Amino acid sequence: MTAIPTITPCPIGIQAEGTRSERDSMGQIEVPANKYWGAQTQRSLVHFSIGTDRMPLPLYHAYGIVKKAAALVNAAEGRMPEWKADLIARVADEVTEGKLDDHFPLFVWQTGSGTQTNMNVNEVIANRAIQLVGGEIGSQKPIHPNDDVNMGQSSNDSFPTAMHVVTLLEIEDRLIPSVEKLIETLRSKADEWMDVVKIGRTHLQDAVPLTVGQEWSGWASLLEDALKNLRHAREALFELAAGGTAVGTGLNAPAGFSKAIAAKIAALTGRPFKTAPNKFAALSGLDAMVRASAGLRGLAVPLLKIANDMRWLASGPRCGLGELLLPENEPGSSIMPGKVNPTQCEAMVMIATQVLGNDNTVAVAASQGQLDLNVMRPVILANCLHSIRILADGCHNFRVFSVEGTSLNRDKLAHYVNGSVMLVTALSPAIGYDKAAEIAHIAIEHDLSLREAALKSGYLDGETFDRLVNPLDMVGKGVGGA
Amino acid sequence: MTAIPTITPCPIGIQAEGTRSERDSMGQIEVPANKYWGAQTQRSLVHFSIGTDRMPLPLYHAYGIVKKAAALVNAAEGRMPEWKADLIARVADEVTEGKLDDHFPLFVWQTGSGTQTNMNVNEVIANRAIQLVGGEIGSQKPIHPNDDVNMGQSSNDSFPTAMHVVTLLEIEDRLIPSVEKLIETLRSKADEWMDVVKIGRTHLQDAVPLTVGQEWSGWASLLEDALKNLRHAREALFELAAGGTAVGTGLNAPAGFSKAIAAKIAALTGRPFKTAPNKFAALSGLDAMVRASAGLRGLAVPLLKIANDMRWLASGPRCGLGELLLPENEPGSSIMPGKVNPTQCEAMVMIATQVLGNDNTVAVAASQGQLDLNVMRPVILANCLHSIRILADGCHNFRVFSVEGTSLNRDKLAHYVNGSVMLVTALSPAIGYDKAAEIAHIAIEHDLSLREAALKSGYLDGETFDRLVNPLDMVGKGVGGA
Amino acid sequence: MTAIPTITPCPIGIQAEGTRSERDSMGQIEVPANKYWGAQTQRSLVHFSIGTDRMPLPLYHAYGIVKKAAALVNAAEGRMPEWKADLIARVADEVTEGKLDDHFPLFVWQTGSGTQTNMNVNEVIANRAIQLVGGEIGSQKPIHPNDDVNMGQSSNDSFPTAMHVVTLLEIEDRLIPSVEKLIETLRSKADEWMDVVKIGRTHLQDAVPLTVGQEWSGWASLLEDALKNLRHAREALFELAAGGTAVGTGLNAPAGFSKAIAAKIAALTGRPFKTAPNKFAALSGLDAMVRASAGLRGLAVPLLKIANDMRWLASGPRCGLGELLLPENEPGSSIMPGKVNPTQCEAMVMIATQVLGNDNTVAVAASQGQLDLNVMRPVILANCLHSIRILADGCHNFRVFSVEGTSLNRDKLAHYVNGSVMLVTALSPAIGYDKAAEIAHIAIEHDLSLREAALKSGYLDGETFDRLVNPLDMVGKGVGGA
Amino acid sequence: MTAIPTITPCPIGIQAEGTRSERDSMGQIEVPANKYWGAQTQRSLVHFSIGTDRMPLPLYHAYGIVKKAAALVNAAEGRMPEWKADLIARVADEVTEGKLDDHFPLFVWQTGSGTQTNMNVNEVIANRAIQLVGGEIGSQKPIHPNDDVNMGQSSNDSFPTAMHVVTLLEIEDRLIPSVEKLIETLRSKADEWMDVVKIGRTHLQDAVPLTVGQEWSGWASLLEDALKNLRHAREALFELAAGGTAVGTGLNAPAGFSKAIAAKIAALTGRPFKTAPNKFAALSGLDAMVRASAGLRGLAVPLLKIANDMRWLASGPRCGLGELLLPENEPGSSIMPGKVNPTQCEAMVMIATQVLGNDNTVAVAASQGQLDLNVMRPVILANCLHSIRILADGCHNFRVFSVEGTSLNRDKLAHYVNGSVMLVTALSPAIGYDKAAEIAHIAIEHDLSLREAALKSGYLDGETFDRLVNPLDMVGKGVGGA
Repeated sequence: MTAIPTITPCPIGIQAEGTRSERDSMGQIEVPANKYWGAQTQRSLVHFSIGTDRMPLPLYHAYGIVKKAAALVNAAEGRMPEWKADLIARVADEVTEGKLDDHFPLFVWQTGSGTQTNMNVNEVIANRAIQLVGGEIGSQKPIHPNDDVNMGQSSNDSFPTAMHVVTLLEIEDRLIPSVEKLIETLRSKADEWMDVVKIGRTHLQDAVPLTVGQEWSGWASLLEDALKNLRHAREALFELAAGGTAVGTGLNAPAGFSKAIAAKIAALTGRPFKTAPNKFAALSGLDAMVRASAGLRGLAVPLLKIANDMRWLASGPRCGLGELLLPENEPGSSIMPGKVNPTQCEAMVMIATQVLGNDNTVAVAASQGQLDLNVMRPVILANCLHSIRILADGCHNFRVFSVEGTSLNRDKLAHYVNGSVMLVTALSPAIGYDKAAEIAHIAIEHDLSLREAALKSGYLDGETFDRLVNPLDMVGKGVGGA
Repeated sequence: MTAIPTITPCPIGIQAEGTRSERDSMGQIEVPANKYWGAQTQRSLVHFSIGTDRMPLPLYHAYGIVKKAAALVNAAEGRMPEWKADLIARVADEVTEGKLDDHFPLFVWQTGSGTQTNMNVNEVIANRAIQLVGGEIGSQKPIHPNDDVNMGQSSNDSFPTAMHVVTLLEIEDRLIPSVEKLIETLRSKADEWMDVVKIGRTHLQDAVPLTVGQEWSGWASLLEDALKNLRHAREALFELAAGGTAVGTGLNAPAGFSKAIAAKIAALTGRPFKTAPNKFAALSGLDAMVRASAGLRGLAVPLLKIANDMRWLASGPRCGLGELLLPENEPGSSIMPGKVNPTQCEAMVMIATQVLGNDNTVAVAASQGQLDLNVMRPVILANCLHSIRILADGCHNFRVFSVEGTSLNRDKLAHYVNGSVMLVTALSPAIGYDKAAEIAHIAIEHDLSLREAALKSGYLDGETFDRLVNPLDMVGKGVGGA
Repeated sequence: MTAIPTITPCPIGIQAEGTRSERDSMGQIEVPANKYWGAQTQRSLVHFSIGTDRMPLPLYHAYGIVKKAAALVNAAEGRMPEWKADLIARVADEVTEGKLDDHFPLFVWQTGSGTQTNMNVNEVIANRAIQLVGGEIGSQKPIHPNDDVNMGQSSNDSFPTAMHVVTLLEIEDRLIPSVEKLIETLRSKADEWMDVVKIGRTHLQDAVPLTVGQEWSGWASLLEDALKNLRHAREALFELAAGGTAVGTGLNAPAGFSKAIAAKIAALTGRPFKTAPNKFAALSGLDAMVRASAGLRGLAVPLLKIANDMRWLASGPRCGLGELLLPENEPGSSIMPGKVNPTQCEAMVMIATQVLGNDNTVAVAASQGQLDLNVMRPVILANCLHSIRILADGCHNFRVFSVEGTSLNRDKLAHYVNGSVMLVTALSPAIGYDKAAEIAHIAIEHDLSLREAALKSGYLDGETFDRLVNPLDMVGKGVGGA
Repeated sequence: MTAIPTITPCPIGIQAEGTRSERDSMGQIEVPANKYWGAQTQRSLVHFSIGTDRMPLPLYHAYGIVKKAAALVNAAEGRMPEWKADLIARVADEVTEGKLDDHFPLFVWQTGSGTQTNMNVNEVIANRAIQLVGGEIGSQKPIHPNDDVNMGQSSNDSFPTAMHVVTLLEIEDRLIPSVEKLIETLRSKADEWMDVVKIGRTHLQDAVPLTVGQEWSGWASLLEDALKNLRHAREALFELAAGGTAVGTGLNAPAGFSKAIAAKIAALTGRPFKTAPNKFAALSGLDAMVRASAGLRGLAVPLLKIANDMRWLASGPRCGLGELLLPENEPGSSIMPGKVNPTQCEAMVMIATQVLGNDNTVAVAASQGQLDLNVMRPVILANCLHSIRILADGCHNFRVFSVEGTSLNRDKLAHYVNGSVMLVTALSPAIGYDKAAEIAHIAIEHDLSLREAALKSGYLDGETFDRLVNPLDMVGKGVGGA
């Protein structure tokens, strides 16, 4: 038993130039001397220099939590000395806080199990820990990337664990608040405009009236429903693979490890994580991610619709629908002076199409799990986090730079309501569908107002018309029917 | 006030040849004399003769429920005489029972609101009702397709109501039972084989052992999770648009209609349907269907994986993995005698790819709702019902003709476990990762058994090896880790 | 050597009730006595009763050509007596003419190689041939489904051969003519309206003018480009797998068979079919179908755009853009009398979303080929033929019932051009972008006409304005820029 | 007329701190003093800070070519003084060479027309040009971003022009060479192993033999066909929108401009660019990009299949198919010592699923063009370039780190061929399908070799068997059948 090494706090960073030698089970390899990563990270950098897609940083921050939890559980159960666990936990915190971001260079396109990223985390934590106790970086002593940092774990269970943790945190901490604020803004506009009557449009054709507030309440409601669904989609993310190790049997992880580490992760994050009830499913499938992606897509679909509606309702200024006035954020055209375009709406529509495509990738990739392990993990994770990020930022900018500043062109709104013939629908219960249709046709053919056409038809007199056809009466109350 | 007409029960069918004249608000048109449908159905048949995709019959059966509910509510609230409601309800029952299926000929590719199918239902119910009371078919008296059968409704609210009802019923009554039985069978096999050790395979490479039962329990678990998710996806389907009428305001539907009709539909079906809290969302979005489709896709993803695994594990008989023996249902090749193929697995994989594509159509179509109405309804409905049908039937046949009759090739299973070098993993906690890796390399390079390589390495003796490396010990207990 | 049997022409159909016994390499099975199919078809019907998707009939018609070609080549090369080949060819013609359609009942969801459908064809041809020479149906004498009808073939090469033939014929004979006629109509409208000035809209915002004819010429051009691309996509379909037999080596097919049968199929169809240069690629991949599907998708994308544009430009009648007047084909609403909707456009948009989803299924399925055979054939074929059918019929109906009858609302068109401020762009070259932008802002803020704003700005006088700003001058000539 | 300013060559970079004021038609805004960009870029940075997706740098490099071409054409036709054109061209070259990359910060999620990126280019070129002639940065003199750098252009035509140029160059210069080298390697392996007999596998079941070389020739052939198709997909990219300006009419671009600028771009790049025949189609559609994306997907589909096949054929080492030996690049497992995984194959499969999803986004986005402009450009461009990049790099690494080092396990290959019963197919022409099937069944049921089973059946003697069943005879010659 060696003496407990003393931690000498030193700033992050290795003051060295050139390369140093690191080793793994395949032998020696040179790595940049000023980086904490080791042999396996370096091998991955060489073999997987594909594109510009790096494994997303939030994953590493979540991985810090997983590694800390594992160390603490291992110590609590006596498999690892306290000092080792504390040391690992200390460095894991640095990882989680983003302080070691520069040392996680790997690409998305790597081994499908994420093993190389897991080893990147193990290597960085080990070397930084070694540095803190004055050891020789690369010596794997007194902290070994596999035997210590990875104790009780396999990439096969720790990577999907980190996937669930990061996806959950990104959804809860980044995306949901952004969407909630957008909903609030839509709701507040809906309330403000609840009594402003406007013409309805179905099939893009003039229909019976509703209020601007009712229309906007529908948009808010679509997003609320999507959010409710997304919240449910979190459920499966709470279930963690940790403890299943290489194939789900938990080999080399002690009894109780899976429950203990899930509980520790729950404690560290303040979220109800728990151990997955079936580890073989947890390793061979990634269906919780597919469900999360469906939840993200569930936001993209109504966002595309809302952004589309908004730009159409703001079309013009003189040759479109012109009901809404969007804020002018930038010149719209490099050739047409004075043009202002619904650019935030366009960005949102593009984001939605990206999320649809990302979701497609996730579903196809998840179906490609083979036998006891799904090795499509990095692509699934990257696409989910991408969707979360652009949805969250997109909703924020859409709200701040477009929705909040939107106002009404009340003249246009009134003009449409007064001119439409579809208010004829209000006559239907009184005179029947066929006669009402006849009046509508008279109005259109002879370019008459609806009232004029009604009188011309002889089916009713002016007084009756005025009593029956009143836009304000036609829009009802509230949003839900009753 | 006319006298209450007497119902003279008469069999379904119109004994007539040639055509009769029917009318709608656009005028007269000839329809086949032996069909109940009217002018609008006929116009749709002329204008939308596209492909061979008919609106699925289960939709009409669900529509019967909606029409019956509307009539009963209208009568209960005094807007329609009892006899009319009873008459409509009686015919609606015939619709629901499939007795009038021959009178619903319309194509999927029609108006995007489903108006033509709603009118088809209205027209058929009206004419059949007229026939029952001895009236003149086509006279619209005493039952008018719009004023009576469609009372209080618009296609814009009744069609999505029928969509939700039929999708819910198809999921609950057709799909879930089929999947549940498949899960039961997988579970029962998993239990039976819970102690049969086999080699694990990760990255398709030999890994540490698990049991056949554990592997199959993972498959069952994947499907259970998918089913749990699908059940949740039902929630949004319970919310009905009925009462929103043309744009969501409920114009021409009386106060309380939306709640009353939802309650009536709930009573008629025994499912917890309720009125949608926001009718503007209910009409302009179809997001509940997108979520249902995601639920269906959620089944397709693991089914693809399971069917793929099963056919790989049954590959051979002599040049593949050969662990599983699938039942022989048919000759496999028109040229290679004696070949038996995993055809049920192939059908399942194809079904899964179809469901993925259908889901893609649903999500894109749902995003294309514009302003106050989503007019992509028929395509969304058709794709969801298609996915439900082929998943349900596919799971049934997959179970009956493949899973149930699958047996094990125990010689092969044992052969692999005994030959693998990956059992070296059990040495790792004792001698460390690096030495264990060295032993594995020795075994592979020198074509030795793992035990021979271990002894050759000098890192441990035979007795220790035998104590540490025991496949049965390596598979742990149960499926969840603990 | 038996005597040559005499053909006694007899009508198609078996006058029998109940069942008869048929056999294949797995033994006896009862089949319906009045059907020509045999044991393997029957087994497939039992095991693959999934959904309602039957293998599309055009496939069988193409398969008739393949079987006829094989028989004729076999006879020409002396492997089959002339009379047998003539007999098979005669029945194959009946298959191609659709006379035996009732005897091809199999589902899409079957073995992934299409073997069962190939055997269905073999069995039906054999039994019908036996009937024609007065033999005992089911006796496999004197025509054996495998040894004779399938001579020199495997399902593995004959099914993809039939896939290419049917897809090519459906594209050339069904789809392209329909699209060409739509293009012609669009072109003719474009020519008719080439000088009708209208306001342009970019970002949905008012832009500089163009003519209606220019806009429509763009639509026609998009479709022409798509058609050009689709025509290219045919190229790969001309390459046939026939002759590769079971794995591509051509085992059991004689030397020269692959070239001879491709030439025969070319002769029978009048299309430049040829043998695939690499049979291993032809069996293990289905990439020609993926390319064909991409060609179909290439039509769906602009059709979605065009149908969308058309319904927006026809939106109104009083509260939309209202530039186009679409024909009124049917009442638009079950509740709003007098409403007429752009239903053909809606059907087209739905068709386009279906084609996008189908294409997704095709690409995913094609990627799932494993080792020496792609067994995702039926799903790929069914989706391609589905897309072809609905695109072809959809383009026909869209043209006949919507595009041809579309007319212009010239008052609206002129009103927009006169009212827009975006004609300010014409001032930019003369006074610079910034001053022009200033004038546009003055017009919008003070609700002035552009001319009024220009004068108010002081940057130019009325005469100069009138010289510079002339919509007719602004639209240029022709469609291509020069 | 001012004097021609003198160029004082100065290094790239602005030595300034803090901010400077820039202006556009909306007024003043502060920009970082050490950046060349101007007001519109800055506004975009503020309003579109979404995610981490920057507009890909190769786009800017291509944009440099477009701006240079425009300036040269403008000068040649006398609209711009020579010195201005030369100055702009000089800076445009710096853009193309990547020297100004740090000054193009904009995000993908911006205005859908790409206007902001066009203005970014205009602003950077103007300010850098101003710097070179000693002017005041931000003064827009003597080079104005709109009036000079954008002369004769609109974002609406110049952005899609740059899109086509960059996509074409990336496909030709980055992707095709990488795929060609992969094909060469596959071909060379195929040639090397053309006579190594192996067992075929169809439906994953043992089938008749082929050679390793034949199998690999199929893979090479699939990629060649995909490349042929991709080359064709370039055709539409050669057609440029430049000259259409804002809506396609070419307003503010002089006669002949479109042809002249296309010719100039062709000259500068050495590729056959030409002006698009219909500018309205070129602005309102992005179908050439959809076709390019389909071409990219056309590579992803066979690459997924090939990578999948390769990892299956290399599965093992002891419990899989084990025919191929892939190079060992890195340790495979953090817990299972000695494990080596097919990680390059996994990366390739993940890349393929990403390309499928990207392609989905492209097709959906392209269908969302509305009226006279498709404003889904950045998302379409970003996804196409992403696919190109990861396919190109992926093929390179897959080749270098996996395919080139792959070798054969000849013992395994021979073992399978000798053990299989599917060689029975060679008996079929001699004794008929049914008897051959019987022999196969005997072999499997009694665990006999095929020869033993054949003798046991009594249908033929040993000598006949040996003559008929010879694997080398069964594989035929070459790859195409004949």
